Amino acid sequence: MTEKTLEFWFEYGSTYSYLSVMRIENEAALYDISVVWKPFLLMPIMIEQGMKQGPFLPYPKKLDYMWRDLERRARYRGLQYKRPSVYPPRTLMTARIGLLAAQEGWCPQFSRKVFHLHWVEDKTIGNEQNLMEALSSLGKEPTEILEKAQEQKTKEALRQQTDRAKDIGLFGSPSFMVGSELFWGDDRLEDALQWCVSPGMKAFETDG
Amino acid sequence: MTEKTLEFWFEYGSTYSYLSVMRIENEAALYDISVVWKPFLLMPIMIEQGMKQGPFLPYPKKLDYMWRDLERRARYRGLQYKRPSVYPPRTLMTARIGLLAAQEGWCPQFSRKVFHLHWVEDKTIGNEQNLMEALSSLGKEPTEILEKAQEQKTKEALRQQTDRAKDIGLFGSPSFMVGSELFWGDDRLEDALQWCVSPGMKAFETDG
Repeated sequence: MTEKTLEFWFEYGSTYSYLSVMRIENEAALYDISVVWKPFLLMPIMIEQGMKQGPFLPYPKKLDYMWRDLERRARYRGLQYKRPSVYPPRTLMTARIGLLAAQEGWCPQFSRKVFHLHWVEDKTIGNEQNLMEALSSLGKEPTEILEKAQEQKTKEALRQQTDRAKDIGLFGSPSFMVGSELFWGDDRLEDALQWCVSPGMKAFETDG
Repeated sequence: MTEKTLEFWFEYGSTYSYLSVMRIENEAALYDISVVWKPFLLMPIMIEQGMKQGPFLPYPKKLDYMWRDLERRARYRGLQYKRPSVYPPRTLMTARIGLLAAQEGWCPQFSRKVFHLHWVEDKTIGNEQNLMEALSSLGKEPTEILEKAQEQKTKEALRQQTDRAKDIGLFGSPSFMVGSELFWGDDRLEDALQWCVSPGMKAFETDG
């Protein structure tokens, strides 16, 4: 028996990642696919690739559209939506804790909680209130976790994770990897799951 | 009886527009929706908005991904796919003819043909061979159409169409307008059709 696995690469400050964070475990479970959560920092990659302010901020029309589209897609996915007052948020500390959580097995719960607080209660991701409330709700001791998140080995692990993201060709979030096959964007999650169940182009040769 | 109408705004040089051009009439017909074809020039808009080389060309990783994703999506949509040898193509003349075709009612057939030649036979959109073959296949006299396409009024009509695209906030192709509601990308065609059938956020409040 081989286990079907999908890597879920995401940045906590990415707007469209909200949609995937909230639904990926349920969707993957339908196909017995295990999700490996891979938080990373997207901005260093964006900057290196020449998108110094990310994919939306420099383009007002595209940014306006993003908010409207997110509102529609959130409703379509059955998710609550309230446009956050802060954009983009600062996600370094959240990413470090997310990585720690991934190592210890509580990344899905932690990530859903910080995204929920950001997108429903306007408690900005990366802010202390958001982190404290998320950690407490999971029965974690915030002070202890924050200390661990600032240890050298956690910082280094996040740097390595981000380097790895760059090496495998990521340029956006959310991204899904099935082996060496990359899928980008919440609207490609279904394609990624399909590829995971039946790898190769063949699986796509159906009526669309 | 009010007629349900969707405006389909597209640029002939846009890769993802291939997917929409080939399927939009069939999909819209399922809901009795009329499609109004609106070819325009995207590059002047992109340049004005600061995307001087379009959304992919300056970003090698994103560009690599685009080709792979297009191949997968084309298969998924039941479309043939052969990566074109020229990218990006020069689309000014094709857009003028497309606009003329829209005025005269043969834009869907013309557009499907030029995209097919580009994506299946590698006869580059905008090249003479592509245009001649497309026009002949529709029983049009190529020389006559080319002359009309270069008349001042056609040039002016395309400029106005492109100005209109800018005014309504377009920044990419394919785009779909339902009244004042904008949907961007082939993967939002279903959302646009849904909005057309039942306008407003309410329609999206289903289980995704």
